[in-house]
Amino acid sequence: MMNEVNHELYMKLIESYDNAHDRDGISGKRLANRLSSIASIGRTQDNGANRPGYSREEKSAKELVAEWMQMAGMIVRMDGAGNVFGKLEGKQSDSSSIMSGSHLDSVPNGGHFDGVLGVLSALEVVEAWNQTGFQPNKPFEVVIFSDEEGSRFSGGFNGSEAMMGKGDIQRKKKLLDFNGWSFSEVLKDVDLSVESYASSNRNISDIEMFVEVHIEQGKQLEKKNLPSGIVTGIAGLCWLEIIFEGEAGHAGNTPMEDRQDALVATSEFIVEVNKLPASISESAVATVGRQFVEPNGVNVIPGQVTLYVDVRDIHLETRDQLVNEIIFMARRIAEKHQVNWKYLKKSRVTPVPIEKSTLEKLKKSFRANYIEPFLLPSGAGHDAMIIGAELPIAMLFVQSKGGVSHNPSEWYALNDCVRTVHVLKTFIEDLQ
Amino acid sequence: MMNEVNHELYMKLIESYDNAHDRDGISGKRLANRLSSIASIGRTQDNGANRPGYSREEKSAKELVAEWMQMAGMIVRMDGAGNVFGKLEGKQSDSSSIMSGSHLDSVPNGGHFDGVLGVLSALEVVEAWNQTGFQPNKPFEVVIFSDEEGSRFSGGFNGSEAMMGKGDIQRKKKLLDFNGWSFSEVLKDVDLSVESYASSNRNISDIEMFVEVHIEQGKQLEKKNLPSGIVTGIAGLCWLEIIFEGEAGHAGNTPMEDRQDALVATSEFIVEVNKLPASISESAVATVGRQFVEPNGVNVIPGQVTLYVDVRDIHLETRDQLVNEIIFMARRIAEKHQVNWKYLKKSRVTPVPIEKSTLEKLKKSFRANYIEPFLLPSGAGHDAMIIGAELPIAMLFVQSKGGVSHNPSEWYALNDCVRTVHVLKTFIEDLQ
Repeated sequence: MMNEVNHELYMKLIESYDNAHDRDGISGKRLANRLSSIASIGRTQDNGANRPGYSREEKSAKELVAEWMQMAGMIVRMDGAGNVFGKLEGKQSDSSSIMSGSHLDSVPNGGHFDGVLGVLSALEVVEAWNQTGFQPNKPFEVVIFSDEEGSRFSGGFNGSEAMMGKGDIQRKKKLLDFNGWSFSEVLKDVDLSVESYASSNRNISDIEMFVEVHIEQGKQLEKKNLPSGIVTGIAGLCWLEIIFEGEAGHAGNTPMEDRQDALVATSEFIVEVNKLPASISESAVATVGRQFVEPNGVNVIPGQVTLYVDVRDIHLETRDQLVNEIIFMARRIAEKHQVNWKYLKKSRVTPVPIEKSTLEKLKKSFRANYIEPFLLPSGAGHDAMIIGAELPIAMLFVQSKGGVSHNPSEWYALNDCVRTVHVLKTFIEDLQ
Repeated sequence: MMNEVNHELYMKLIESYDNAHDRDGISGKRLANRLSSIASIGRTQDNGANRPGYSREEKSAKELVAEWMQMAGMIVRMDGAGNVFGKLEGKQSDSSSIMSGSHLDSVPNGGHFDGVLGVLSALEVVEAWNQTGFQPNKPFEVVIFSDEEGSRFSGGFNGSEAMMGKGDIQRKKKLLDFNGWSFSEVLKDVDLSVESYASSNRNISDIEMFVEVHIEQGKQLEKKNLPSGIVTGIAGLCWLEIIFEGEAGHAGNTPMEDRQDALVATSEFIVEVNKLPASISESAVATVGRQFVEPNGVNVIPGQVTLYVDVRDIHLETRDQLVNEIIFMARRIAEKHQVNWKYLKKSRVTPVPIEKSTLEKLKKSFRANYIEPFLLPSGAGHDAMIIGAELPIAMLFVQSKGGVSHNPSEWYALNDCVRTVHVLKTFIEDLQ
């Protein structure tokens, strides 16, 4: 396969790289070169990445990494859902595997690190072992999951769900992508099928643990000036749709005391929702990001407001407690303002907390690499969330610049990436 | 001219009419018949009214009323802006006139009372005098102002502004209507011109007072179960555009304490704005009716909110005090939430309070007709507002059903209309 390189990306990565982190077989240049090679596939005019799930671009990226896996001595196979597994045999060939990786698909005009960094970090651990002649006791698998982002159809994690036997085939059969293609037509275009997808679940007892390196997509590590951090759990979201229904009226002809203003009720609700998470848990968040006012006229008292609350926490109990308190608050405020209200739970994902013993091992790996262990929740979903519902997982975040992601300007310092590979390598070696 | 009648409207008006109010020459049937005749011009499929300003339908309605004026012995003339004046000579022919009337244009698919009731109430006073052989000392003019609603171009009061010499000709020349016609083309279609419009200002010393009967477009009289009420003043509005600019971010990956959520700041502002008018004056109101959240995604912390505050009061001093307190509040809340903000005064109309001596005379007229005098502000603008900037005015509101207006279902009981004509007649007779 032709191996083009996105030279701008490569030069920018190398520019401020501190070669001191090239040790124990890990190479910053190799990582930069591979990030830049993947970045040349589906490259956009804005120098962004365009590799939707199950596109030919995603397939090409997988094929390139599969080639690197083979060159690194791994046995490579692709399952019926397009997930790629590169397996490095362990000394104990009958042991279950340690698995690490992420995804290579992107959102439209996305960045060059999201997903890719997780796949290449896992592969870099293998390269390092090859350099130093280390063979792990347990088999180590580098995985590339298909279509994590969900920008092709509504709903991502199509690869990891298939591996876990969680893909809802009947629902997926009804999906149409941005070209109007069915799930079946999309799979066919990359030499897969609904039948192969449906039969790609693995015997999960073969996997001891899945560990994912991912970009933070937030600003906490940047504020702490740390290259990477330990994810305490993956927050499960619950989306509430709430409608407050008052009475529209002329802004000039309705005295203040005669109003049932749906926006005033909504506003009081939003102020209260913003205060609630702190009273429940450190990692809980609640956001009203989307709101529609009707009729939305300058001189009309709002008759109805529809709003959405995004509620997340890494523990199901506290997440649901927060959801319940928000619903209770909506009722109280609706009664106070004498407006009608209703709510609907639109989407609900179970959070995945990470085991305490795993967090302790991760802390040890950070300390061994002279990085202060810093714990933070993951607010966004990742393949690790799908796997974590049934298997032990671990997750590392790499420091984002300005918290930007899903955008061509998404940026990660190569120093931080390489230091995170060192932590990953230490952690996996400690699991042997 | 053919005099069609909207029979549904006529039957519905007459159905619950109490003939006891037919006295002193005033006739409920005549008023109902005339309301229904005007309602047949520009009648819509929904049984609404469609007579945009400067349309042929508005012109036909004016011509029909002009015919009635002539039949009632008035001298009729139309000015260059299409305003129609029917003049009944007084015993003192050199005295300035008492003027009463309103408009015959409608919003698209509007109701059958807005404006029309004011014109026909004034004409009904003349009919009553004719029946009883009364001649006033002072000349009495019934006026039909052109294009009050402003649904043709952006901005109404084109007729009353022309009479008062307040029409901004240079601005109006640039206007385009819903057909893409210029102001000049529109005027030409109804046999007027920009030149005739520009030269239609009157010598206002000819007018002693203007009194307008209008529909309430609110629910205060219905709540009080009163046929009509005394308008204390016409509120002048001030529209503020306010932008709060925080920082957009991922709803899952940004801890609560690190946010600059533009919608949380906006919401606190709206709650406070709703409390402010009560602390300033009885008639002040402030409304946030229109709001845009950006980017308005369920899982994105709002980065920017643009909102509009509609502020009104009948006194300039208290209206401006309220505007200033709202701006001060925006600043305080922006600082508290560490978001940027800016504001713009978009539209500013000077309120027109009604003189105390006039209110006292109106109260007397109500009591003489056994109606409890009830005072209320007008939140909406009317032709009386344009005239009131320079001349004494008086205004009567008739009870709305459910506060509905600008809609085919706008409804007014004939009993209430006729009782209001009695008050108007008493008031005008007291001015002699």
